[in-house]
Amino acid sequence: MSTFQHLHLEIPKCDKPRVVIIGGGFAGIQVAKSLRHEPYQIVLLDRHNYHTFQPLLYQVATAGLEPDSIAGALRQLFENHKDFYFRMARVTGIDLEDKKIKTLVGELGYDMLIIANGSKTNYFGDKKMYDRTFPMKQVPQALDLRSHMLQNFEQTVMSREPEEKDRLTNFVIVGGGPTGVEVAGALGELKKHVLPKDYPDINFDIMKLHLVDGGPRLLAGMSEKSSAKAMQYLQEFGVDVRMNTRLADYDGRDVTLTDGTVIPTKTVIWAAGVTGNIIDGLPKETVERGRILVDEFNQLIGYDDVYAIGDIAMMKTDEMPNGFPMVAPVAMQQAENLGKNLKRKLRGKSYVGFRYKDKGSMATIGRNRAVVDLPKFHFGGFFAWLVWMFVHLMSIVGFRNRLVVLSNWIWGYMTYDRGTRLIIRTFLRNNKYKPGDTL
Amino acid sequence: MSTFQHLHLEIPKCDKPRVVIIGGGFAGIQVAKSLRHEPYQIVLLDRHNYHTFQPLLYQVATAGLEPDSIAGALRQLFENHKDFYFRMARVTGIDLEDKKIKTLVGELGYDMLIIANGSKTNYFGDKKMYDRTFPMKQVPQALDLRSHMLQNFEQTVMSREPEEKDRLTNFVIVGGGPTGVEVAGALGELKKHVLPKDYPDINFDIMKLHLVDGGPRLLAGMSEKSSAKAMQYLQEFGVDVRMNTRLADYDGRDVTLTDGTVIPTKTVIWAAGVTGNIIDGLPKETVERGRILVDEFNQLIGYDDVYAIGDIAMMKTDEMPNGFPMVAPVAMQQAENLGKNLKRKLRGKSYVGFRYKDKGSMATIGRNRAVVDLPKFHFGGFFAWLVWMFVHLMSIVGFRNRLVVLSNWIWGYMTYDRGTRLIIRTFLRNNKYKPGDTL
Repeated sequence: MSTFQHLHLEIPKCDKPRVVIIGGGFAGIQVAKSLRHEPYQIVLLDRHNYHTFQPLLYQVATAGLEPDSIAGALRQLFENHKDFYFRMARVTGIDLEDKKIKTLVGELGYDMLIIANGSKTNYFGDKKMYDRTFPMKQVPQALDLRSHMLQNFEQTVMSREPEEKDRLTNFVIVGGGPTGVEVAGALGELKKHVLPKDYPDINFDIMKLHLVDGGPRLLAGMSEKSSAKAMQYLQEFGVDVRMNTRLADYDGRDVTLTDGTVIPTKTVIWAAGVTGNIIDGLPKETVERGRILVDEFNQLIGYDDVYAIGDIAMMKTDEMPNGFPMVAPVAMQQAENLGKNLKRKLRGKSYVGFRYKDKGSMATIGRNRAVVDLPKFHFGGFFAWLVWMFVHLMSIVGFRNRLVVLSNWIWGYMTYDRGTRLIIRTFLRNNKYKPGDTL
Repeated sequence: MSTFQHLHLEIPKCDKPRVVIIGGGFAGIQVAKSLRHEPYQIVLLDRHNYHTFQPLLYQVATAGLEPDSIAGALRQLFENHKDFYFRMARVTGIDLEDKKIKTLVGELGYDMLIIANGSKTNYFGDKKMYDRTFPMKQVPQALDLRSHMLQNFEQTVMSREPEEKDRLTNFVIVGGGPTGVEVAGALGELKKHVLPKDYPDINFDIMKLHLVDGGPRLLAGMSEKSSAKAMQYLQEFGVDVRMNTRLADYDGRDVTLTDGTVIPTKTVIWAAGVTGNIIDGLPKETVERGRILVDEFNQLIGYDDVYAIGDIAMMKTDEMPNGFPMVAPVAMQQAENLGKNLKRKLRGKSYVGFRYKDKGSMATIGRNRAVVDLPKFHFGGFFAWLVWMFVHLMSIVGFRNRLVVLSNWIWGYMTYDRGTRLIIRTFLRNNKYKPGDTL
């Protein structure tokens, strides 16, 4: 920690109440924006200096987009906001009694605290999987996967042992939620349209995509019709989908599934689920299954000035006895509702309870194919794919990002090309060969 | 090396002579292209899977461009080329007697060898500088510098010790060639137009840019007029330029210059020069000052089937008694000439000696300003800047890269914005804090 010894988390005091927001994800930026013109001092903390548009992260991992398309610098997002402070800092603890948070660069008091630090990859405590598989939650992780995947193909060309070639070209995706399904679709696209042009000496029949999920159907959060369609699309791509199946073991070389199958592979993508980023210092009774228990106002039970929103919040209602799904629309709507309530508070009005408006959900599986669930209507195919593109494009924060993504998509669609097939992060886990100048 | 134990550098034999090209830089790709339709089997080796357009690398380092703008996947560049093989491999040795090269993944015989592996950062043997300064020769290095620089400003906001703030915001650039001058200009732009919007709590007067060079004038390879103009432009940006000055010491915290000045800084950019990437196995008498001695046909003296082109080649002529400058135009023209000669060889004709056609040189210093030396005419200012942009845009390999760079430039020019202010590579040298999921 010697780097940080000179640093201090000091924010100038002013006469407005200080709202500290932990996390610059969908929930955090939404609540900060909605309080923009209110008499609050806003302090936003994040360990990264950018917001990540996670729904498209898998396209960074599969060489479709560069990080600048899907990530936006947080400072830029809040340029010209008055009484707004961003600090790049990792929050390590919360002191609810003294009303302050702890970070690697010091402590900071708050008048109101909004915990919006989202979720992290859930390894269910399995250290082996944490060490040996690729998560898909952050930009650097997506870049690692991209470089690793492309290095595998470079090595396949130079391998003459069939089993080793299999190990390099087999991909096992753990988890059949939207991330798993979309990664599988994108890898299917690469296999079908992109990689064979790059590697004429590889017979791409050997590239096998496996998707395993412990549950009975894909996209468990969506309709049965969409699950079935997603299954059909993946199978058309030649993806070996195994439901009710989990990883029994993975030694970094061979995966053993619970059905006994052994798959030689260097690449296991871990999209099995997420769990809340619980911070030290919260009373035991406020945490349930990795999330923070809140009431219908997203207020921490028993604490007046502490709120949790988004993935980290566990709000139980009659319709949602296990809490709301950990997805972006819930996060944004909870943030909007909290913003509204904090405005009402200033005006002496009472809080309004959160009502989730489910606008539907969707997933895409390669070019021209997607599944869309609207509240009363489910559809798939080409039109669903257009809807998927439009909604994602419109949801990306920032006009520039939108332009970059759109132009990349048009280019990719027309040319069957992926612009970012660059191995820029030598993956050091199994690899002692490091590029760089020598003396 | 355990990762590579299963790999082998095997290329199918055919009845055409095998030309092995080491390096996918300007020279390597040019010669490979010019032999496209000739009866040669071409094997291109590079330790990266992409070609780097080095003249714009500094824009990646200064948050102006993402790597996909200036790097092109080598396999993509040679798609549909017949009898062409790319292998991502680092060449570690040459055996001129047995006519084979050695790599980490095995050996490969050649009928003709073209050494085009360019140059690396020259630290003049100074291990301290190698360990503590930022080079600017490769994409990962540029990304490291970008992340480091932005982390510095994030830390500046949280620092209350003036000396520590200086250390974080001072930049020392070593070397007044095109790279040093262009980096200084780009940092000047960031200071003036971009960073103050991001960091309203930093008074950017404390951000000091220093450029030191051991010689008597900037851009020593250009005209005196251009040197003087570049000096004027840099000074208008507030850059402290010190000629005839070198680094006496740098302990990672404070730079000591040969004139006695001490500058506290965490960021020293090493653009002091380059030296050839000499590979083991070349006879001593063929190497001079880090480059390979060649005749006017780029042929290794005494070896019929071995050529060296580009930065690595030392071709002495009456006009150029110390060899040609290590720049892209020389590399490309030598590659073209060699390509022509290898075609003549097939037709039983004699070789044509290399004649350098100096089309001029140029450098840019921030928005609207550049210097251009044409053979008989030197000019600077806005028109020079337009010429600089046009020439660089047209020189980038690949239509897609051209589009990406152009749109980034237009966006940046109109908005004073830099799209890629993302800290995606946590710089671990001084920093134990690593992002990532935890178990």
